[in-house]
Formats: sequence, C-alpha cells, structure tokens
Amino acid sequence: MASPSNAVVPPDTRVGLVAGNGALPHQVADLLTQKGLTPVTVAIKGEADPETLARSVAELGWGEIGRLLKTLKRHGCSRLLLIGGISRRPDFASVFGDAGTLRLLPKIVRALMGGDDSLLSKVIGLFEAEGFEVVGMTDIAPELLAGMGVLGKVSPSNSALEDMELAFKATERLGELDIGQAAVAVGGRVVALEGAEGTDAMLERCAVLRANGRIRSKGAAGVLVKAAKPSQDLRVDLPTVGPRTIELASAAGLAGIAVEAGRALIADQEATVRKADEAGLFIYGIERPEKG
Amino acid sequence: MASPSNAVVPPDTRVGLVAGNGALPHQVADLLTQKGLTPVTVAIKGEADPETLARSVAELGWGEIGRLLKTLKRHGCSRLLLIGGISRRPDFASVFGDAGTLRLLPKIVRALMGGDDSLLSKVIGLFEAEGFEVVGMTDIAPELLAGMGVLGKVSPSNSALEDMELAFKATERLGELDIGQAAVAVGGRVVALEGAEGTDAMLERCAVLRANGRIRSKGAAGVLVKAAKPSQDLRVDLPTVGPRTIELASAAGLAGIAVEAGRALIADQEATVRKADEAGLFIYGIERPEKG
Repeated sequence: MASPSNAVVPPDTRVGLVAGNGALPHQVADLLTQKGLTPVTVAIKGEADPETLARSVAELGWGEIGRLLKTLKRHGCSRLLLIGGISRRPDFASVFGDAGTLRLLPKIVRALMGGDDSLLSKVIGLFEAEGFEVVGMTDIAPELLAGMGVLGKVSPSNSALEDMELAFKATERLGELDIGQAAVAVGGRVVALEGAEGTDAMLERCAVLRANGRIRSKGAAGVLVKAAKPSQDLRVDLPTVGPRTIELASAAGLAGIAVEAGRALIADQEATVRKADEAGLFIYGIERPEKG
Repeated sequence: MASPSNAVVPPDTRVGLVAGNGALPHQVADLLTQKGLTPVTVAIKGEADPETLARSVAELGWGEIGRLLKTLKRHGCSRLLLIGGISRRPDFASVFGDAGTLRLLPKIVRALMGGDDSLLSKVIGLFEAEGFEVVGMTDIAPELLAGMGVLGKVSPSNSALEDMELAFKATERLGELDIGQAAVAVGGRVVALEGAEGTDAMLERCAVLRANGRIRSKGAAGVLVKAAKPSQDLRVDLPTVGPRTIELASAAGLAGIAVEAGRALIADQEATVRKADEAGLFIYGIERPEKG
C-alpha cells in the first residue's frame, strides 16, 4: 500500500494562455505545441490579434473574469501564462461584468489602483488565489528570451556602446520608480524616456526630435535600451521588442537597439534580427552588472 | 594717500542679457530697469521673440560669439545673465563664424559635446574666461522665482499632493542623470518624463494619452512637476513655467502644476497665476526636503 514515489505520472501538458496583443501569444502557442505541450488560449477582447484569435478557445473582455476562470478550469489548465501586451488599462466601468467578476471586484478594484507593477502582481495574486499556478516565459519558453552580446550581423561602435550604457542606467532609474522600461540615448545624452505612451510612441517621438533638430548626429547614432525593472516579476510584462521596434528605431535614425539578456523577449526573433541586419542596425543583449 | 575703503563708488548698473526665447528676457529687462539697473540685451538669432528684439542692442547667431563678446564689452557690461530658452541646440556647422568664434572654437566644440548640463556650465566657463561675471536670477531678480505653497486660488487635493510627491521624486532621478526637469503623475502613477522634447511637448503627449485612454481619471487629475537638477548651476536653465504651461496642463486634464520653490521661474507670474485660477488648476511651490 506504500505510495510509489517514483511512479510515472503523466505530466499535465496543458498551459492556459491569457493573450494580449502582438504576435507573441500565437508564437508562444506554436512553440508550446512544438514542445509537446497543449496551449489553451483565451484572447483578451480588443487586444488579441487575428492569429491569436484563430487559436483561441474563447475571447473575453475585462468584465468576464468569472468566465475566464471557468473556461480555464473547464479546459483543465492549472498552469497559466499571461502573454502579450495590453494597450489600454481597463477602466472601472469595463470590469463590472459577470458574477465571477463581481465576486472578485474588491480585489480587481484594488489591482486597478497604483502603478503597473502592482497591477500585474495583483492580477497574478488573483489567479493564484483561485488555485492557478502562474508561470512565466523564463519557466516555460526560455528560448524566446534575448541572448547575450551581438545578436545580428551588425556590431555596435564604441560610441554606441557608451550610449547603450547611458540609456541602460536610465532604464534602471525608471524601473526603480516603476515608470517604464525603455530609454534612448544619442551622442552621450539621454533624449527620451518611456512613460505611459509605450516604446513605439517614444521612438516615433525620437524621429520627430531628429526631424526638428533637437537630436542631431552625422548618420545613424544612438541606442534604444529596453530592460526589466530591478524588482520585475519575470512572469509578466517582460520588456519586448520585435520587427516593428526595428522599423521605428531605424526611422528615428538610431544605430541599434539593446535588450536585457535573459530578461527580455524578442518577438519573432528571426524576422526581428533579419530586419535589423537589413536596416544596418545592431541588436544586442546587455548583461546587468552584478551588484555588490 | 590711504585708499578710502568706504569710498562711495557708483555701482556698475549695467547687466548684459544674452536672450533666448520666451517672454522672460524682456520681462527681466523691464524688471532690471525698474530696479535702477541698465539691461543691455543681445538677442540670440532665431530664438529671441519680437519684444526682446525691440529691446536689443544686437541680434547675433551662434557663429558670432566674437561679436557677442565685443558688443557686451563695448557696452561696458562686466556682468551678464543668460536668460530665456534655447529651442535648438546649435550644430557644429552653425558655430563656424567670426574670428572670435574661431579663436574659441575648441572650447565651443567641447561645450557642444555631452549633456545639457555640461554644455551650459561650459558656456559659463567660456564667458568667465573672457572676464565676465555670469550672474543668475537668484542673484539679480529673485522676485521672479517661485514662492512656496499654494500660489493661486486653488489648493491641491490629497491625491494631487501624492501625485506631486511622486512626480517630484521622478524629477530627482531625471536630474541625477542630467536628462530633464519635468514629470507628470496621474492617479499614483508617473505617466510621462521629459527628455529632449521639452515640457510643452510632454504635456501635449499627456493630452493624447488621455484622449486614447492610456491616462484615465474622473475629471481633472494629476500633476506636472518641474524641478531643478540636484546639481543644477542656478545661473542657467532654471526650470520655467508660464501661461502656456497652464494652457497645456489644462488641455492634458491635469489638476495642477508644481514647481520647485526658490529654484524655478514663473514667467509672467501674474498672468500665469490668473490663468491657473481661471482654469481651476492649482499652482504650487514645492520645497525640496532636507537631505541628511
């Protein structure tokens, strides 16, 4: 009657994907399938793109958290992954929804207060309180994390490395204050910091600054750095770049982009690196220096 | 033959004003005149506004630094004040100018490298090396500095005071990195940080963020804070707000603005405060907490 501690229990292969915008959710779904896992995608209404929707078992809005939890349970998911971007913070009105949402409302309302970081860690807490294990890309799909050093064909110049270091320091300060994940330095000067507008809008701003003479350089110069917050919960909201980031960095006249190795995602890595190579931009994985 | 140490030497009343954009240069000129001083304004070409130009003895471009120094000397100015904004950093080409400029070129080129802070302190060094005393508003026109506490008719709410503290902390971090002077917090979250785009463009961005739902609040909420860098040379580039700041803050749906008391300028103070009162915005002078 001894319980056999070495019994081969079939591992639970199901992973719930609560899917926001961008290509990452369906790329992750495909990757998990390749790895022999079974993704169960629930698309967030108004965020998920058509390819993600095509792979989804349901499309649910912010007011349907009760249904979301039921859907995941019905599909036997005990693990879940929150993946993809959220372009709009839900407002209070939009979370008044189904019965499950109403039951959780006090928690949700608390989660909607305060900075992004606390929002996301509270969302995680909410799922955990319902018996789910929330996993991250670092646990389940580390192959999508950025590698170290030069990732494409182009190498950064010495002045680009200096800009990179400067912008990286700026992202650390941003992260300490839980503001944003990205900064741009050009010619030894930090010219843009990401707030609520997001990285794409910040890069568009840099293109304008260059057009109106507030950023100047001979030829392409300057670096976008995206890095995780020092206190970042690696299960949610990892800094992410993709092909569009390269397009916008190129339009802003930057020499390249850098992401934090092991703590940032490159969506559609092959296309992103190819695009960088074609545009003559470097793409680089920075290591966070050891503290102490 | 003893030199009378208490001899009444007529004080030198002349003050050179090297004048950039905005209303401050001519407001300062008028104030100095009221105080019995003699302003000698040299307008920076492409920056100074018509009213400043009307009070100027010369209008000189970046390539005419030799003529600038001569003009100030010819008018007997040994003291000078750098006042008003610079919307465009001069590029290398535009400083190739007259003989005086060429002589100073190595210093100027060095000054054009690096962050804003070093640019300005190097410009000061350049004038000092030519025998001028560079004074600041704190020395010569402290009445234009922001006072402490509530400066208009509207008082900040408790949540506005919290946003103010948060945005003020963000400006401290910006200042340590020599990036910008301004930040906006709304609802307990820093949503925008000033880089090379300047405060006006940052506020315009906040209006867009509100329009597209990335900033949300019931009614007006949130605070713009402008504060000096911790290491700021108080003789140049003091944080400045004016009537236009109020207009843009109001358009962005903010509840008010705050500046650092004693270390920030309010251009056209009467009009600025009146405009804030009319728009229902508070305008507030924050004190920097003592360190140590």
